[in-house]
Amino acid sequence: MIPLNKPYLPDQANYLSYLQSAFDSQRLTNNGPLLQQLKNRLEQYLGVKYLLPVVNGTMALQLAYKTFNLTGNAVTTPYTFIATSSSLQWLNISPNFADINPQTLNLCPDKALTAVNKNTSALVPVHVYGNPCDVGAFEEVSRKTGLRVIYDASHAFGIRLNGQSILNYGDASTLSFHATKLFHCVEGGAVIFKREEDYQRAARMINFGIAQSSGNIADVGINGKMSELHAAMGLAVLDDIDNILTRRNQLFNYYKSLLNAYLDFPLWHQGASQNAIYFPVIFKSAEACNQAFLTLQNQGITSRRYFSPSLSSLNETFSGQTSSCFHSEAYAQRVLCLPLYYSLTEADIKKVCATLIKSLTAS
Amino acid sequence: MIPLNKPYLPDQANYLSYLQSAFDSQRLTNNGPLLQQLKNRLEQYLGVKYLLPVVNGTMALQLAYKTFNLTGNAVTTPYTFIATSSSLQWLNISPNFADINPQTLNLCPDKALTAVNKNTSALVPVHVYGNPCDVGAFEEVSRKTGLRVIYDASHAFGIRLNGQSILNYGDASTLSFHATKLFHCVEGGAVIFKREEDYQRAARMINFGIAQSSGNIADVGINGKMSELHAAMGLAVLDDIDNILTRRNQLFNYYKSLLNAYLDFPLWHQGASQNAIYFPVIFKSAEACNQAFLTLQNQGITSRRYFSPSLSSLNETFSGQTSSCFHSEAYAQRVLCLPLYYSLTEADIKKVCATLIKSLTAS
Repeated sequence: MIPLNKPYLPDQANYLSYLQSAFDSQRLTNNGPLLQQLKNRLEQYLGVKYLLPVVNGTMALQLAYKTFNLTGNAVTTPYTFIATSSSLQWLNISPNFADINPQTLNLCPDKALTAVNKNTSALVPVHVYGNPCDVGAFEEVSRKTGLRVIYDASHAFGIRLNGQSILNYGDASTLSFHATKLFHCVEGGAVIFKREEDYQRAARMINFGIAQSSGNIADVGINGKMSELHAAMGLAVLDDIDNILTRRNQLFNYYKSLLNAYLDFPLWHQGASQNAIYFPVIFKSAEACNQAFLTLQNQGITSRRYFSPSLSSLNETFSGQTSSCFHSEAYAQRVLCLPLYYSLTEADIKKVCATLIKSLTAS
Repeated sequence: MIPLNKPYLPDQANYLSYLQSAFDSQRLTNNGPLLQQLKNRLEQYLGVKYLLPVVNGTMALQLAYKTFNLTGNAVTTPYTFIATSSSLQWLNISPNFADINPQTLNLCPDKALTAVNKNTSALVPVHVYGNPCDVGAFEEVSRKTGLRVIYDASHAFGIRLNGQSILNYGDASTLSFHATKLFHCVEGGAVIFKREEDYQRAARMINFGIAQSSGNIADVGINGKMSELHAAMGLAVLDDIDNILTRRNQLFNYYKSLLNAYLDFPLWHQGASQNAIYFPVIFKSAEACNQAFLTLQNQGITSRRYFSPSLSSLNETFSGQTSSCFHSEAYAQRVLCLPLYYSLTEADIKKVCATLIKSLTAS
C-alpha cells in the first residue's frame, strides 16, 4: 500500500523539548513565546515581513478577505482546492471564476481582467502546485482596475522567483501549514501582508478585534489564534526544513526522470524555484487519466484527482456567475497527483511509475 | 501577584501518553482516533448526543449559525463576551440586542420576543457565567415565532437543570474549550445538536463541505477541525474533571462565605447545578466597582470587568438596530469577576476578599 501522503514527523525528542517549555511557562495559547519565535523564524527563513500565524489555512484566506473588506465577488481560479472559493462563499462573497492558462494551470490574467465587473472587490489567484502565477501580469491587472490581489499561496512555501520570495507579491499571500503540507504545524496557516497597517488590523481581528494598546474593541473579529502546541510542531519541523526540501526534490526529480517520456507536466514559471510539494502529471485524455487512477488503485497505490472537479462546475455550491472555464474543466479530468512525501522511497516510486506506464501502454 | 486565571495543566505524563499514540499512529488531525475518543467520552460525560468537536468556541458559534442558514439578524444579549456577537457580524448577520433580566443577568425572554422583527432568523441567548437561561420561556418564544434557539453555552460545561444537561435545550448549544475554561483542549470548542441531520451537515461543513460517503462537495464549508494534539489535551483534562469541579466549587463557596455580607451575586436558576467557572460579584454602584478594581490592582490582584462594555453600546462595531439595554449597560459597570482557577489557594482568596472589603468600607 502506498498512500498519497504522510505527515512529516519531526524527531520526537525535539518536539517534546519545545512542548516542555510551554508546560514550564504555563502559556498554552494567546500569542505565546513559541508562536512569537515561530513567526520570527518563518519571516527570516521565507524572506518576508509582516507574517501572521493563524489557526489554519482557511482562516488565513478569510482573514485576508476581511482585512481588505471584500464584498460582492472576487475573481479567482476554478482549478484549485475547494477552500479558496468556499472560504469566500462562507463570507457571502461570490467566487467569480475565470479560466486558467492551459500550460501553467494557473489563473489566466487576461481572462481574469475580462471577468472583472462592478461588484468585483479583489483578485484571488492561486500558485497551483507551488508554480508561481504570472505575477507581473497580475500587477498590471491590479494597476488597471485598482483591485487588490490576494494570492492563495497554500502550496508555495519557500518558493522564490528570481531570488525573491513569491510571498512578497500582491497585497497579501496566504499559507497553509496543515499536516499534509511540506512545512506544517499539524493545523495552521499564515497571512503575509505587504503593509504593516494591514498586518496590525489582521492581528487585532484574530483576537476578537481587541486593540492591544487600549483593550477596546476596534474591529469585528474572531478567534484565529494558533496554539503553543501547534507552534511547537512548526518549530520542530522548521529545524528539519532543509533536509525535507532536499529529499522531496530528489523524489520529485526521480519521478520526472522515469515519467518524462510518457506524460506531460505543468509548465513551470521561468526563474522560479521548486518545492516538490505535489507531483502532478497530465494525461492525453480523461479516459487515460481515469484508467491510470483505477490501475494504481488496484495495486494499492493512492493517487488523487487534484484538482477535480473544476469549481466552475459546482453551480449549486457557488452563487456567482461564471465565465466559460473550458481549460479548467478539461484539465480537471486529465491530471493526477501521485504519492509524494518525505518517507517515500525510490523503490515506491519505481512501483508507482511501472504501474502507471503499464496502464498507459495498455490503453 | 494573583492573576485572574491560569490554565489547568494535567499530569504531564498522562498528556504525553495520549500524545504518544498520535505519534505512533502518524495521525495528527482530520477526525483521528483521539478526537473520536474525546467526542464519545464528552457525549457520555455531559449526557448529550450529537456533539461535534471543532477548532475553537468561535467556530462552534459560526458553525451553528451556518448550519441553520441564519441571515438578517439574530436576537441576542449584549451582556456577554464579544465573541457571541462578533461571530454573527463576521458572517454579516446583525446582532439584534435585547436587554437582560437584572437579577440573573441573562437575556430576558420577554424583551427578546419584543425585539423579533421580519429579518430575525434566530435567537442566541447565553448562559452567562454558566447560569442557565430561562429555557422554558425561550421554548415558548420559539414556539410563538417559529425561530430556532442557539444557546451560547461557552460557560456552561457540565451544568445540569433538574438533572438534565443544559446542552439539551434549544436547537443547538455551543461550548468553548479554550485554555482559560474549566474544561479545555488548549484551543477548542463543540456544537451539540438536537437533531442528527443538523449534526451531519455541520460535520461536513467543518471538512470543506465534503460528503463523507461520496467525496463530493455537498455544502459550502471551511476547515473547522480539531487536531489530535488538542484532543489529547482534552482527554487528559477530562481524566481529572471530577477533581477540577470539586476544587473549583470549594473555592467558589469559600469566596461566597467571605463576601456574602458585602456584595450581591447573580440569581442562580433554581434546580441548576454550579460549575464555578467564574466568580462574579455585583457592586451597589459603578463607582464602588471601579474603586474595587483599582484597589485590587494596586495589590497585584487582577480582576476583570466581565462583561464590559455592554455590546449594545458598540455602535461602530455592530450594524444592527438596538433596543434599549438599560440593565445590561448598568450591570456592565457594576460587575467584576474575581480570580478563580484550580491552583488558587484559600490564602489567595482571603487576601482578595480582605482587599475588596477594605475598598468597600473605605468608600
